Amino acid sequence: MDFPSDFFADHFHLGIFFMKQFLSVNDVPYLQGLVHLAKEVREFPHKYPTLGSGKCLGLIFMNSSLRTRMSTQRAAMNLGMSTMVLNMQQDGWQLEFGDGAIMNGDKAEHIREAAAVMGQYCEIIGVRAFSGLKDRDADYAETVIQGFAQYTNRPVVSLESATRHPLQSLADVLTIENRKQVAKPKVVLTWAPHPRALPQAVPNSFVEWTVRAGYEVVITHPEGYELPDTFTAGATLEPNQNKALEGAHFVYAKNWSSYLHYGQTLSQDPAWTVSAEKMALTDQAYFMHCLPVRRNVIVTDEVIDSPQSLVIEQAGNRVPAAQAVLIELLKGL
Amino acid sequence: MDFPSDFFADHFHLGIFFMKQFLSVNDVPYLQGLVHLAKEVREFPHKYPTLGSGKCLGLIFMNSSLRTRMSTQRAAMNLGMSTMVLNMQQDGWQLEFGDGAIMNGDKAEHIREAAAVMGQYCEIIGVRAFSGLKDRDADYAETVIQGFAQYTNRPVVSLESATRHPLQSLADVLTIENRKQVAKPKVVLTWAPHPRALPQAVPNSFVEWTVRAGYEVVITHPEGYELPDTFTAGATLEPNQNKALEGAHFVYAKNWSSYLHYGQTLSQDPAWTVSAEKMALTDQAYFMHCLPVRRNVIVTDEVIDSPQSLVIEQAGNRVPAAQAVLIELLKGL
Amino acid sequence: MDFPSDFFADHFHLGIFFMKQFLSVNDVPYLQGLVHLAKEVREFPHKYPTLGSGKCLGLIFMNSSLRTRMSTQRAAMNLGMSTMVLNMQQDGWQLEFGDGAIMNGDKAEHIREAAAVMGQYCEIIGVRAFSGLKDRDADYAETVIQGFAQYTNRPVVSLESATRHPLQSLADVLTIENRKQVAKPKVVLTWAPHPRALPQAVPNSFVEWTVRAGYEVVITHPEGYELPDTFTAGATLEPNQNKALEGAHFVYAKNWSSYLHYGQTLSQDPAWTVSAEKMALTDQAYFMHCLPVRRNVIVTDEVIDSPQSLVIEQAGNRVPAAQAVLIELLKGL
Repeated sequence: MDFPSDFFADHFHLGIFFMKQFLSVNDVPYLQGLVHLAKEVREFPHKYPTLGSGKCLGLIFMNSSLRTRMSTQRAAMNLGMSTMVLNMQQDGWQLEFGDGAIMNGDKAEHIREAAAVMGQYCEIIGVRAFSGLKDRDADYAETVIQGFAQYTNRPVVSLESATRHPLQSLADVLTIENRKQVAKPKVVLTWAPHPRALPQAVPNSFVEWTVRAGYEVVITHPEGYELPDTFTAGATLEPNQNKALEGAHFVYAKNWSSYLHYGQTLSQDPAWTVSAEKMALTDQAYFMHCLPVRRNVIVTDEVIDSPQSLVIEQAGNRVPAAQAVLIELLKGL
Repeated sequence: MDFPSDFFADHFHLGIFFMKQFLSVNDVPYLQGLVHLAKEVREFPHKYPTLGSGKCLGLIFMNSSLRTRMSTQRAAMNLGMSTMVLNMQQDGWQLEFGDGAIMNGDKAEHIREAAAVMGQYCEIIGVRAFSGLKDRDADYAETVIQGFAQYTNRPVVSLESATRHPLQSLADVLTIENRKQVAKPKVVLTWAPHPRALPQAVPNSFVEWTVRAGYEVVITHPEGYELPDTFTAGATLEPNQNKALEGAHFVYAKNWSSYLHYGQTLSQDPAWTVSAEKMALTDQAYFMHCLPVRRNVIVTDEVIDSPQSLVIEQAGNRVPAAQAVLIELLKGL
Repeated sequence: MDFPSDFFADHFHLGIFFMKQFLSVNDVPYLQGLVHLAKEVREFPHKYPTLGSGKCLGLIFMNSSLRTRMSTQRAAMNLGMSTMVLNMQQDGWQLEFGDGAIMNGDKAEHIREAAAVMGQYCEIIGVRAFSGLKDRDADYAETVIQGFAQYTNRPVVSLESATRHPLQSLADVLTIENRKQVAKPKVVLTWAPHPRALPQAVPNSFVEWTVRAGYEVVITHPEGYELPDTFTAGATLEPNQNKALEGAHFVYAKNWSSYLHYGQTLSQDPAWTVSAEKMALTDQAYFMHCLPVRRNVIVTDEVIDSPQSLVIEQAGNRVPAAQAVLIELLKGL
């Protein structure tokens, strides 16, 4: 990724990266600009301490969260923006998403009202809503986050939806930009085993963003774990993990369940665990993972505790990533 | 409601509406003044950005909450006041309310200590405590919120108690004031069906406030759903829903369970659902509901999605309502 | 405790009480200085309103909390410091603490990552992690809070760990300092009955702090309730409660389960309840308890409602105690 530095000199005041929502990389008009802003924010986190004053970020969680919850709150704090957290399952109730539903069951409120009401109280709405891994069409229709986007009348930020995790991906690209030693690094996304079935959101999103960032992206996984085509365009599939790792500059490990046999765990093969032997095949690659990570299942202690491991730096980059997104959205309010 | 405008010119500095707590309309010395302040706050939400600086609002939830939780936090933010949220069931434990109790069971703390301690940490205490719908005398004694009011040594704000929801009612009156086209509008509270047994807090409170505001208030419901006399004085009962709706300017739909046969669901009759046919009987009335609402059970999609529906505006008015109450209470600290 | 007043005149600017973490009294270089600062903070809570600006306190709860949660948040607010609360059981997931663990079970994240990541988002980390009362060695090794201290790379504040509750103890010493009428008061810690098995954290910590503060400390309890030697050095054991209470200036009641027969409830003898008759044996002693308290089990209504009861004042002192600790830690950042 190249930055024409003078062009960006005063991007903030020019507002050239006008963004309306942040559900995927497709909402980002100019990726380099956003990454550049995130870099600046990482260096000067308190540069815009009152940009969000008098405004409120609502964070709506349908699922558990540690990094996203804390880093996004911290990003808002750095901008003087207030936050409100709503854990729907504990603080609230179940939502209905079906048009025309006769609501005499266990859903207490329709997304039309819930989202519109939240939009009355908060200038920006963040939503976390995982896939259920039961109904592929429903998950990939992104019913929940699209419902919020449609009815809240405010910019919506994905805090991880059924199919994407763009705040994580932006932090990942920021991490790679900070560490890369060649213009177009080889970035390998490798499937790794895990005891539970996990969504495809992180790998889908990672591929979208890294291809868009201009890296050489290679995906490797056991048979049956193919990600949907719409997300993998521009990346290469190499079924042989060892071969994929050859010459890699960055190894991004992640488990996901099958998209083809939707939500199923087809393999727990420990041969796919990222070990020192595997890393030895690379070009002294950095190791990356979005966390939380299962040690000695996804990756060995030796690799994650090595100087090449970027997992804590990645997590740290969640703050400037979220802060850059909030800056862009606040500019548009 | 009439406003002698010069009289209110500097009400804020004169502090003529001194309020000590906010548990019911009876705590409001001058209703017009409070509504006037809420109107002003709606127009200029950031007029008093430091009134609550260095002070903290404690929000204690015994039950779920979305609108009340978010709107009250937002109101405090607009005044520069900090908030702390405590979900007693998740963050805390069960409270004992009985005097002289030997506490060797499952109640870990007495209201005497819990309330007094919270009063050490927060300048104003908000409490949500629904009715249990089992023991009418206990519910109508308002054991929980009165316990806080008695022992916390701070102004207490009802976030909906067993028998009333005054922040909702103030927002409702604010909404009617904003939309009414005649001096004394006809306001119809109509029972509507619902799959679960609900408290009488919202309808009780709505009648108290709208009668006090000087409207023509008509209540309609199936037999057995009579609200307690102490709340309905000044309102008219019309058992025939169609007849009640004739000439109405505002239709306020709400389900509640029986007060006479306490907590019971005597009817789920869909003939009481507010439909376009019902609304056609009115004088082009606005439709109101406090939310969350069961679509196509309480009200049809056609009505709630029509331009006459005020449900989102009502929810939006929860912020200036709460903010006006906090201003009045902060003035008295 | 004596205060050489000129010595402390400008302790704040001199920074002579440099503190790196707050897990026990052993982390406090100069107890008198910290207590003196807490006294000052109690009198002038808003003296340093921007000391924590732009900084964030993360509060991680593995267990329920009311006083600690609210008082520590309030302390941070008074210093202009932001707070983030994470309830691990509801918002997050289970943590692994074992080195080399193959994480294919129900623990989703290792303390090494979780703590390091939180340290990326917050300048100071508070942790509450009770004892399990099953495995004495594990509890007394303080696996959880030591894990945070080791991996978070930030100052850690105990919000009550398996074996200590130092914020409570500092508030207790502050209360005694404020109320004592002799230079070296007799302080009696008495066991009292309770229906459930409770940790030893509060009594352990109370003894450590009060001995260190220079009081005459006497412990009384039924046989089998001996606290570990490492905490009781400098205190006297008197098995006869009545005899222990003779001449006491402060009576601190608390239940705890057995350390010797680990986690067991050996007695629920109501003869140990602190009653007016018991208090009559003292030198007009004040009554203290950390709360929550079981009325008429630990202490009778008559005693806790008497003018000699300091329980609400103790709880109030939790704010200046936490605030003094945060000031000291912020100075070191």
